[in-house]
Amino acid sequence: MHINQQQITDYESQYRARLINSLSGFKSANLVGTINDKGVTNLSIISSVFHIGASPALVGLIIRPHSVPRHTFENIQQTKRYTINHVSAGFWQQAHQTSARYAHDKSEFTAVGLEEEYIDGCIAPFVRQSKLKYALELREVIHLAINGTELVIGEITDIMVDHQAIRKDGYIDIESLETVSVSGLDSYHRSQRLARLTYAKPEKPLTNLSLDGEEGDK
Amino acid sequence: MHINQQQITDYESQYRARLINSLSGFKSANLVGTINDKGVTNLSIISSVFHIGASPALVGLIIRPHSVPRHTFENIQQTKRYTINHVSAGFWQQAHQTSARYAHDKSEFTAVGLEEEYIDGCIAPFVRQSKLKYALELREVIHLAINGTELVIGEITDIMVDHQAIRKDGYIDIESLETVSVSGLDSYHRSQRLARLTYAKPEKPLTNLSLDGEEGDK
Repeated sequence: MHINQQQITDYESQYRARLINSLSGFKSANLVGTINDKGVTNLSIISSVFHIGASPALVGLIIRPHSVPRHTFENIQQTKRYTINHVSAGFWQQAHQTSARYAHDKSEFTAVGLEEEYIDGCIAPFVRQSKLKYALELREVIHLAINGTELVIGEITDIMVDHQAIRKDGYIDIESLETVSVSGLDSYHRSQRLARLTYAKPEKPLTNLSLDGEEGDK
Repeated sequence: MHINQQQITDYESQYRARLINSLSGFKSANLVGTINDKGVTNLSIISSVFHIGASPALVGLIIRPHSVPRHTFENIQQTKRYTINHVSAGFWQQAHQTSARYAHDKSEFTAVGLEEEYIDGCIAPFVRQSKLKYALELREVIHLAINGTELVIGEITDIMVDHQAIRKDGYIDIESLETVSVSGLDSYHRSQRLARLTYAKPEKPLTNLSLDGEEGDK
């Protein structure tokens, strides 16, 4: 089936939103934790977190200012600090519930029943239930004039993770942590590993790696 | 386990790359198809595709100019056209192999054994084996000075998808298409749906949706 640009434009807006949101594939499910200058915490599920670079360790996310994560955006601008918390199989429904439009003075932590956790040097709250989470310092906000969204770029300052999930070569086995993914606007998924693959070279056949990144695993 | 910023900086660079690349969660696996002005096609696996907006239908991706997708970036700038093709369970190893450093005049389609497919109005090649793919027109390139990467923003002009995968409300069941995801730099995963959830409202309990987006499904 071939859908052309005119058809895309003509779709009813909710239909189009579901369709277009499905095209970017499986997306990471993350909760962004923030706090405002009155001490009210905020938690917002965001599926647009993406890797920008490892050195410095930079992560980007897209915020639509007129949608629910608006409080998140305001808080990040106020405090320059935020946390990103992997959503795992134990609390994915509570994570989805954070997308409801709660009042500005109501914390989603309380509303959905997740617990705050803090570390020294970061004012923003982590989600205690999350098995892989990290703190960021705001580095840059780039306004995307093309559709009025904001690209928020942060540098990772602290990583909190179960020690056993970090494999010998640095790879974190997020499947063992039961991190979930999202497709479209509202579908959540577990994962099932196919394999880790060797670094690709032009004339060398690929083989599987062990979870620790060692060659020779079948 | 708490890893602080100094430790992140001190890690050996490949170790750090694997660790930091694991933090963004499950990422979509996509092949970006392009062609240069001499007619040489190029195919490159990219895990940084993300949704920017549905109206207009905008998709972003990050390109590190000194890494393999450099040809991709040059071709997009030359022709303003490219395709994004979901990687599915039938050809994920071939997709990974496109990350090898092939010569500029060598097409990854031939090198890894995937077939080109074309539609009227788009000079860039699709991957025939991909079950969900779309053509884009370049809208904007934003140079991220913070680490020298490029944010490429394109508008979707054409979508090619198996008709049966589009559900009643516009959601595309990418799990039925066997779209895979990536974690870290080299781990590939299938998915297993937990559920689709209703739109979240403050005082309303969430329930599951049917695949077609209907309420009342258990």
